[in-house]
Amino acid sequence: MRFRVGCELGYQVNGPASFVLNIEPARLPRQEVVREELTLTPEVPVQRHVMPESANRYLRFVPRPGELTVRYEAEVALDPLLADPATIPEVPAAGLPFEVLPHLYPSRYCQSDRLARAALELVRGVPPGHARVTALCNWIHDNVAYLRGASDVHTSAADTLVERAGVCRDFAHLGVALCRALGVPARFVSAYALGLVPPDFHAVFEAWLGDRWWLFDPTRQAALDGLVRIGVGRDAAEVSFATINGAATPTAMAVRIERLDGGADPAVAERTALAVSTADA
Amino acid sequence: MRFRVGCELGYQVNGPASFVLNIEPARLPRQEVVREELTLTPEVPVQRHVMPESANRYLRFVPRPGELTVRYEAEVALDPLLADPATIPEVPAAGLPFEVLPHLYPSRYCQSDRLARAALELVRGVPPGHARVTALCNWIHDNVAYLRGASDVHTSAADTLVERAGVCRDFAHLGVALCRALGVPARFVSAYALGLVPPDFHAVFEAWLGDRWWLFDPTRQAALDGLVRIGVGRDAAEVSFATINGAATPTAMAVRIERLDGGADPAVAERTALAVSTADA
Amino acid sequence: MRFRVGCELGYQVNGPASFVLNIEPARLPRQEVVREELTLTPEVPVQRHVMPESANRYLRFVPRPGELTVRYEAEVALDPLLADPATIPEVPAAGLPFEVLPHLYPSRYCQSDRLARAALELVRGVPPGHARVTALCNWIHDNVAYLRGASDVHTSAADTLVERAGVCRDFAHLGVALCRALGVPARFVSAYALGLVPPDFHAVFEAWLGDRWWLFDPTRQAALDGLVRIGVGRDAAEVSFATINGAATPTAMAVRIERLDGGADPAVAERTALAVSTADA
Amino acid sequence: MRFRVGCELGYQVNGPASFVLNIEPARLPRQEVVREELTLTPEVPVQRHVMPESANRYLRFVPRPGELTVRYEAEVALDPLLADPATIPEVPAAGLPFEVLPHLYPSRYCQSDRLARAALELVRGVPPGHARVTALCNWIHDNVAYLRGASDVHTSAADTLVERAGVCRDFAHLGVALCRALGVPARFVSAYALGLVPPDFHAVFEAWLGDRWWLFDPTRQAALDGLVRIGVGRDAAEVSFATINGAATPTAMAVRIERLDGGADPAVAERTALAVSTADA
Repeated sequence: MRFRVGCELGYQVNGPASFVLNIEPARLPRQEVVREELTLTPEVPVQRHVMPESANRYLRFVPRPGELTVRYEAEVALDPLLADPATIPEVPAAGLPFEVLPHLYPSRYCQSDRLARAALELVRGVPPGHARVTALCNWIHDNVAYLRGASDVHTSAADTLVERAGVCRDFAHLGVALCRALGVPARFVSAYALGLVPPDFHAVFEAWLGDRWWLFDPTRQAALDGLVRIGVGRDAAEVSFATINGAATPTAMAVRIERLDGGADPAVAERTALAVSTADA
Repeated sequence: MRFRVGCELGYQVNGPASFVLNIEPARLPRQEVVREELTLTPEVPVQRHVMPESANRYLRFVPRPGELTVRYEAEVALDPLLADPATIPEVPAAGLPFEVLPHLYPSRYCQSDRLARAALELVRGVPPGHARVTALCNWIHDNVAYLRGASDVHTSAADTLVERAGVCRDFAHLGVALCRALGVPARFVSAYALGLVPPDFHAVFEAWLGDRWWLFDPTRQAALDGLVRIGVGRDAAEVSFATINGAATPTAMAVRIERLDGGADPAVAERTALAVSTADA
Repeated sequence: MRFRVGCELGYQVNGPASFVLNIEPARLPRQEVVREELTLTPEVPVQRHVMPESANRYLRFVPRPGELTVRYEAEVALDPLLADPATIPEVPAAGLPFEVLPHLYPSRYCQSDRLARAALELVRGVPPGHARVTALCNWIHDNVAYLRGASDVHTSAADTLVERAGVCRDFAHLGVALCRALGVPARFVSAYALGLVPPDFHAVFEAWLGDRWWLFDPTRQAALDGLVRIGVGRDAAEVSFATINGAATPTAMAVRIERLDGGADPAVAERTALAVSTADA
Repeated sequence: MRFRVGCELGYQVNGPASFVLNIEPARLPRQEVVREELTLTPEVPVQRHVMPESANRYLRFVPRPGELTVRYEAEVALDPLLADPATIPEVPAAGLPFEVLPHLYPSRYCQSDRLARAALELVRGVPPGHARVTALCNWIHDNVAYLRGASDVHTSAADTLVERAGVCRDFAHLGVALCRALGVPARFVSAYALGLVPPDFHAVFEAWLGDRWWLFDPTRQAALDGLVRIGVGRDAAEVSFATINGAATPTAMAVRIERLDGGADPAVAERTALAVSTADA
């Protein structure tokens, strides 16, 4: 599948400020960035870095005071691996790759150390494997209200389990935290998401099952094979599309994704039942 | 029913200390304290107070340094009101007695302001009335592990909803918080509890339904008509059998209750299904 | 001193709703409500209740669907007791009136059980008495930013101690919690406050020192002898000017207070150094 | 300086269990592991991994049921870089190495996102640089009680800021969180610590200043140039000497460190005022 993705971010810069952006899709075996273009208006020098352990692509720059516009557009070829969920097992701790172990630890917004009993209870009777993580997502979808304004930047998975309302970020945090509480490595993923209404950066998560990371979206708002991944990390604390130190305020934001190869949009309800992986295992 | 209840509390007093105890059963129309005896060794003058809004009976004294023993024994005649749960309705806010309204507010350990969605979800499909509160208790009983050491004196209902383990105090806090979140006034109750193993001060709660307070015990460890009530309050912050300011450490504690009138012990499983009220409505 | 106080509250009532309002000044020996007028448009029957333990005056009514306006105006004669702070001692636990003891307990927004070490640290070197509570207020004033939007209805004293920003309600909660942590009974007070800009219901607190409740305002935004008290309670959970169950949304709100007896407005900075009491001891 | 370090860990293995240990000192330019010996009794195959981003050395094995003893001993040559604190500046966000940026994010036990105001307040008047981090450590040392049993495995920096008591892990978490809140990258470090009484694994932290990581110990219990580092990570969630999945319970633990080269033990009070770095910048 081929996608055109992009965003346009506007800022008013009122003094010294440093920007770190993570808006470019990762370059991975199953996700090829065919072409891309970044435009800063006015132009300033940009530093680039690809984080080895995550493949996240960071941009850093210090804009001049005044208006700043960041325009990014890319064409991405995605080759998702689809599989029968029934064939994807959980992996005991002794069998996990060492690189994956940090994704078992609790993190700022995913206090898995407090959720062991709740997680076990929510999947009571469900056999281990891809289906257990799907069961967690089903519970989240059925019991947490998708509601803007009900949560904020400090809201954690434990808060969401109590208050039962939030946005995609909160849904992903709760999914990550419950997985880790079951001993399943999980990480937070930001993405351009086909079909998301209104268009925005989306937050989903990945769980390590079998021999790779598999995608899950407890909001059920996007097709898993219509996600162009940007960043991964322990949780939203590590995956922000923009981190700004200094005197700048956002003035505009638009996020876009469209399918280029003429295929129909994946039907959300239908496709989220598939096991989908796009990560570099 | 007639009970003999009592306790023996030992302390080592190392300096100036003031004690406030709430160990004497409340005197209520349905709970007559037939005879009682309090012995402090060594003797010190005792101040007494009955709190008008709760009927809680407080003792206060300043012991001399050294060993202190508090012995209390009473004979109590209990006349519980038993009713068919199906006949006991919830009361809309506009119809509640004003005196009851404070028991709708969130309190230290019962953050009902955060639990509205969770409470509604847990009773989905259950009709309003005594049965809804029983449904909450059933959920607590089935989903929270009774486990000493899993909680401490700072543990709140929101914590217990996340961590799913605690003792009678935590079970009662979660019941109180969920009731208030549904708009049902609820309060914390300490009691001598027939059949509790091992014997100890017990914590249960009351919900205001119909025209009075009805007892509930989400631990299912005591028969509701075998409870000799001591104190009521917003939560455990207000209902402590001993509040000590100063240099004293507990050295011994024994709590006793036995049935005097020859009747058989109520069967816990059987009797907790009844609606029971012993409060002064 | 004589004040005219009042408020005008507008609501859109969309369905069944019950209102409990606490907007009328308490009737106390030192605070006489000389005359008052309540107008509901459209008219509906109003129930009234004065809570014995707090003297709070509650109004309850069930408005018809449509627009609702509540207008309240009163003339109040205030006779504050002023005293030299140096003469006002703290009272050891053994000497407190029993009625005051509940105001030593932690409450929803005032987790004094967690703050003992912090409170002691903040008053290190300050002698017990009115000056210690003033020292706490000074610390709050100097270290917490008065900032709308930094806190919400769930924010507690422990949150404010960490995040260091909030509004009058948060300042009062932190003051109450720190007092209780020192063993000084404290309670939350809502009031009409002369000189508050912009005009609004104000939140301050009272601490029990010597033989009565003394007023404190850690925001330093109002003169203590220019406060016409409305409600008192353990914390904001118990003192709300409007508690609405049902389908109604606020559409307008105005709060007013002016001095009637021709005296000059108290100078805020100057007067807050005085010990002021208006409560019924 | 030359040290002999080691530990002996005993476990009772009651069923299937997988162990991940991080007890071996990191191999770094300034910290040479001259010789080491690991003995598992009974013997089982051991997998090894060095995490690229941290240099942490992990051991993993699945012991047989029964008693298990892990003995580790090593000789380590340490070449700490000592510097004058006055020469070590803070680095603005735009000038930090990209690899260091993740250590600015909040983590499970270090909620720096909530501490910006508190951190700024605690260093009011202190110029940026090594001295600001020392000022944070001084505040922690002077205001947090070192007290076993006051905290547990769920305790976070925000909790410690409220409750003001904890152990080395809590002190380090608060230091890390306050640094990040100021924009100074910081990470948690576990170490063998010369002079620690009683001997145990110690927790300290590092802040990125100038062009490298510098060590800080807010407990003031160990000399910074007497620390043989084991693991680093975002916080204690990532740096545990033993992570066990399965049925095993600890039965014994001893930790040892001694100086080999005849030099005197560093005097704790004197040496902690120096800027010390042993990390691979």
